[in-house]
Amino acid sequence: MKALRKMRPQRGAQLESVGIPTLGPTDVLARVRAASICGTDLHIYGWDRWSASRIHPPLTFGHEFCGVVEKVGDEVTTIRSGDFVTAEMHVNCGHCRPCRMGQPHVCQNVKILGIDADGCFAEFVRIPARNVWKVDPAIPEHYAAIMDPLGNAVHTVLAGEIAGLNVLVTGAGPIGLMAIAVARAAGCATLFATEVNAHRRELAMKMGADEALDPSQGDVVQHVLDATDGAGVDVMLEMSGHPDAIHKGFQMLRPGGRASLLGIPKDPVMLDLVNDVIFKGATVQGIYGRRMFETWVQMTELLKHGRLNLEPLFKERMPLEKFDDAFSLLESGQAGKILFYPNGSAK
Amino acid sequence: MKALRKMRPQRGAQLESVGIPTLGPTDVLARVRAASICGTDLHIYGWDRWSASRIHPPLTFGHEFCGVVEKVGDEVTTIRSGDFVTAEMHVNCGHCRPCRMGQPHVCQNVKILGIDADGCFAEFVRIPARNVWKVDPAIPEHYAAIMDPLGNAVHTVLAGEIAGLNVLVTGAGPIGLMAIAVARAAGCATLFATEVNAHRRELAMKMGADEALDPSQGDVVQHVLDATDGAGVDVMLEMSGHPDAIHKGFQMLRPGGRASLLGIPKDPVMLDLVNDVIFKGATVQGIYGRRMFETWVQMTELLKHGRLNLEPLFKERMPLEKFDDAFSLLESGQAGKILFYPNGSAK
Amino acid sequence: MKALRKMRPQRGAQLESVGIPTLGPTDVLARVRAASICGTDLHIYGWDRWSASRIHPPLTFGHEFCGVVEKVGDEVTTIRSGDFVTAEMHVNCGHCRPCRMGQPHVCQNVKILGIDADGCFAEFVRIPARNVWKVDPAIPEHYAAIMDPLGNAVHTVLAGEIAGLNVLVTGAGPIGLMAIAVARAAGCATLFATEVNAHRRELAMKMGADEALDPSQGDVVQHVLDATDGAGVDVMLEMSGHPDAIHKGFQMLRPGGRASLLGIPKDPVMLDLVNDVIFKGATVQGIYGRRMFETWVQMTELLKHGRLNLEPLFKERMPLEKFDDAFSLLESGQAGKILFYPNGSAK
Amino acid sequence: MKALRKMRPQRGAQLESVGIPTLGPTDVLARVRAASICGTDLHIYGWDRWSASRIHPPLTFGHEFCGVVEKVGDEVTTIRSGDFVTAEMHVNCGHCRPCRMGQPHVCQNVKILGIDADGCFAEFVRIPARNVWKVDPAIPEHYAAIMDPLGNAVHTVLAGEIAGLNVLVTGAGPIGLMAIAVARAAGCATLFATEVNAHRRELAMKMGADEALDPSQGDVVQHVLDATDGAGVDVMLEMSGHPDAIHKGFQMLRPGGRASLLGIPKDPVMLDLVNDVIFKGATVQGIYGRRMFETWVQMTELLKHGRLNLEPLFKERMPLEKFDDAFSLLESGQAGKILFYPNGSAK
Repeated sequence: MKALRKMRPQRGAQLESVGIPTLGPTDVLARVRAASICGTDLHIYGWDRWSASRIHPPLTFGHEFCGVVEKVGDEVTTIRSGDFVTAEMHVNCGHCRPCRMGQPHVCQNVKILGIDADGCFAEFVRIPARNVWKVDPAIPEHYAAIMDPLGNAVHTVLAGEIAGLNVLVTGAGPIGLMAIAVARAAGCATLFATEVNAHRRELAMKMGADEALDPSQGDVVQHVLDATDGAGVDVMLEMSGHPDAIHKGFQMLRPGGRASLLGIPKDPVMLDLVNDVIFKGATVQGIYGRRMFETWVQMTELLKHGRLNLEPLFKERMPLEKFDDAFSLLESGQAGKILFYPNGSAK
Repeated sequence: MKALRKMRPQRGAQLESVGIPTLGPTDVLARVRAASICGTDLHIYGWDRWSASRIHPPLTFGHEFCGVVEKVGDEVTTIRSGDFVTAEMHVNCGHCRPCRMGQPHVCQNVKILGIDADGCFAEFVRIPARNVWKVDPAIPEHYAAIMDPLGNAVHTVLAGEIAGLNVLVTGAGPIGLMAIAVARAAGCATLFATEVNAHRRELAMKMGADEALDPSQGDVVQHVLDATDGAGVDVMLEMSGHPDAIHKGFQMLRPGGRASLLGIPKDPVMLDLVNDVIFKGATVQGIYGRRMFETWVQMTELLKHGRLNLEPLFKERMPLEKFDDAFSLLESGQAGKILFYPNGSAK
Repeated sequence: MKALRKMRPQRGAQLESVGIPTLGPTDVLARVRAASICGTDLHIYGWDRWSASRIHPPLTFGHEFCGVVEKVGDEVTTIRSGDFVTAEMHVNCGHCRPCRMGQPHVCQNVKILGIDADGCFAEFVRIPARNVWKVDPAIPEHYAAIMDPLGNAVHTVLAGEIAGLNVLVTGAGPIGLMAIAVARAAGCATLFATEVNAHRRELAMKMGADEALDPSQGDVVQHVLDATDGAGVDVMLEMSGHPDAIHKGFQMLRPGGRASLLGIPKDPVMLDLVNDVIFKGATVQGIYGRRMFETWVQMTELLKHGRLNLEPLFKERMPLEKFDDAFSLLESGQAGKILFYPNGSAK
Repeated sequence: MKALRKMRPQRGAQLESVGIPTLGPTDVLARVRAASICGTDLHIYGWDRWSASRIHPPLTFGHEFCGVVEKVGDEVTTIRSGDFVTAEMHVNCGHCRPCRMGQPHVCQNVKILGIDADGCFAEFVRIPARNVWKVDPAIPEHYAAIMDPLGNAVHTVLAGEIAGLNVLVTGAGPIGLMAIAVARAAGCATLFATEVNAHRRELAMKMGADEALDPSQGDVVQHVLDATDGAGVDVMLEMSGHPDAIHKGFQMLRPGGRASLLGIPKDPVMLDLVNDVIFKGATVQGIYGRRMFETWVQMTELLKHGRLNLEPLFKERMPLEKFDDAFSLLESGQAGKILFYPNGSAK
């Protein structure tokens, strides 16, 4: 089968012909319908410091997809050939302390398919049955392909109370934009977004923000404080990983508020812990992956009831062969999701 | 001033002329714009067993209203003449154990204005300043008049997670209908309502239910189980107080689910604790009043952002003089809210 | 091997010779060191209505034990021969909605070993590897044999806040007694127990109760209210399943309190929902099984640090052959735990 | 009356003769029995940057005390002359968003007695009645004098689950030491403390730590990871405010763990948010003041049941006149609490 692979510890990738994965008794083989590119894939393609430390070529990468089950291992009873599925690509160990404490999403021995083992930029992908998620038939195919990052957004937004609360989303990349849609669907009050890129600010408004602010222009902190009677927002969802956004975000957070951090800063960040966290009695949550599988249940319900309009997020759809174009587009700062169709063109 | 008063321990009420309340240093006097009738007022009017045990005539009753501040006590600094307000009419003591534990809504020494002391079916009403709630100018006057019962609904719905979860509302009286609107605004998944009255089922659909089921026809329990893949609903909001609704509601609740009970059963209820609560690992919450003042904050945000369409709930608007007509209408099974305008006709 | 089996749908049991269980690839075989008798086993032995509806003879019963791993299936990597283990005998399905929502302890397709499949009253028992729990070497063998019921107690006590709170335990059978020890270890304030049996009241005091009250003598409700400045207890742990204990327990619960119900009433119970739950704003939790595996982690820590003295709970230790004596003793009202030693006498 | 006052914006303080405070209708006047010195008082005495920005001389400082009610304002009904009391010295406004959201301990308009208005280093102190806390007669006088800082410790420890969990306390100053006692009383598992000062490490062991580690010697991070099977601690209680302790503390925290920060860093702190918070899915809580009044209730119960042995904390007891000696002692690095007796010598 065709597979997009990292063959050497350097920039780039190669389309290779490899064998279809063989199944263990509890595995599932899915024929990939659509696969979506994550920022992480861009790092792997570009080969940055993180990639060099984590990725062991050769590797088929890619971890966002939907597809149809081709066959299942001997002991698999809950998934059948023909099922339309996606998957939680974080495979947890089940016996470390976080797993035992009901927090498998921060398993200490996690293996991520597409990072630590072969992923979905291929015609077929192998997944342990318990990580396979059947997609509700009411959910459109291209939405099913991005449930992994959408799950990040759902996890972040629903990690605390949200209905009737004022919310700030810092950073309007794909997951930030999804978070806006989710927070809106969950009944948030005023939703502020901050984002330096004008096009993304436009998208933020389309996704449901009340105000999309440019933090490089004027005093956004004062603006948001004024707009909230001096209190600040109840909830801050950090989606940028940018130190400046983090600093300003904390200044806009009200005492007693929640800050949920998903964005990945490149370097350590200087925090004014006293004023931004301690005296505020704030709750700061690190968000990683998706709750297994609370997030998947909630996300499925929101999608199948049509509560989320994600259309503005989708950009190019292309065959796997055009991977260099795809990564170039993304490196140029293209927001939005690009979909590969490894088994044929998108209809 | 005019005041609708319970003068004697028997059915009925009288429109009386009484003095305008005098203010203590921490009190506020409001000129009532609109007052709304609660089911409790109907009990007081009709003089049932509960009323006989709790109400000490003479008493000006009524506890749902909005109005304009006429004057304030010497030590009141946060409320001013001219403010448009409503109020939390449960006056808590501040020093019992529930008050000290952050649960003033279940204060052991609560005094409810309109029940334990004079209320708002009058031209003027006196309220302790800390119980007065300034109404956001974006909130329509007739909505402001029903924030007390709407707060019951908001408290019930938001007493646990709701976004992305399947919900059952048992009973579509005014608060049940409000709960449907709130659950919908907060991003619930499928929303089932059960209600024997056909008109109320229609209202339930208008408020946002996906299905309004008649529990007297067919097997609603099986229907809801089938519609939820055999699981049952994640959340049950009990708004009827009817034993049959409670029984069926618990049968429709999934293991690990939440049942929030607001409806007031007349008598003790036989519960199958083993199968409905214990083996299910269910969480059952008694809901009383409104969180002080979390509920008021969340409700204000939902209202001011226009997330709740409550128009279908409103029925007659009448001068205070027509109180007998109002209570007759309600006793006839009229759902919906009736508003009094003690200081002149509604526009 | 020897196994104590239910062979026919009637009272009694038989010691049989059966084959040692064969292992699937993810199973573990343990040689039983000590097995403990649960109230449920007594029901199975006596063959009551519940047993008749649930148990399908022939069945090796028993679900509380500790033992040494004899061998493991081909795919088992985390458990080895020679490990000293016990097990969570509730085998969850992993794909129903409660399982997906992080609540496997209320799995809708649970299979309980010793009830729905062969259990541990035998020389050997087969367990799926993910249900096996390695016992910390600091935990005494006889404590390891009762981690299943102790887990019920830990689950109940730690299902909400407990430190610095006043607690009522209704019913001082084995799990009630364990709950007393756990609540005390977790820093509860005053601990009241109610129990009709004088011997058990004595045990309750030994386990750490401040007062062990006889609910058949005097007004225990008033006594507890008086002792808590009229407030009532913050937390009620219901361990009796007796309607009278439940009624009185709710009357002793303060507004805003938590009632965690583990005891199994034989029949539906009449509850004064209005006064005991709704107006109180109480939280009522059904408790079933053990959190998988939060409860096991917490319990292990409490045991290995010697925070729980459970010695007063232990009674007879006998070979499996003496099963009729054991069940007779328990039927006579004997509190405390009886241990079987299927592979030889206790030292 | 005598009062220890900050008279000028510079180092030092003066014992002055001032009038006894006059009472408003809702105030209480207490005759101070014992007052305790907080680190904050040391800052005010020494006049650091924070003091210069916050304190407006002249001011009677001091905010930890116990005493006897001398008289009460006209509207005070719940406190009487002769009551033995202490007080929550953070006076919240009641109408900002945090106050309205049930978080008065992070009120945006808080006034702290002893910082923003006259405090308790005097013969008498005036307190609003709702901030006065009656001391249970079972609580020793010198313990009552330090309920303010003890409340910080109780708030921190009980801000999340603690029973059966492994805990790290970074910093063994007075509040860190109290936190050790509280965590132990609440049933924590292994308790590690880190502290550079040898004397304080000794005290940490006396208060109940299992290990008191010197972070300047060897690799404490690796040591704690090894001691927790590689997982790290479940809960980190940061009591030092020192960047190094914070860094190491986060490295010792397990994925999914809780970090509760009370210590006040002098400067912003560089945090490795990705590895220490985000990828770990950690929950970081800023802790400020005491929950009003949940913390006071829990603390009272723990004290009155004798669950906390705080004796090792107490050092000198002296008349108010010896204030220079007291501050010198503390500036010399003396751990432990010093008590003033403004109305006469300690017995």
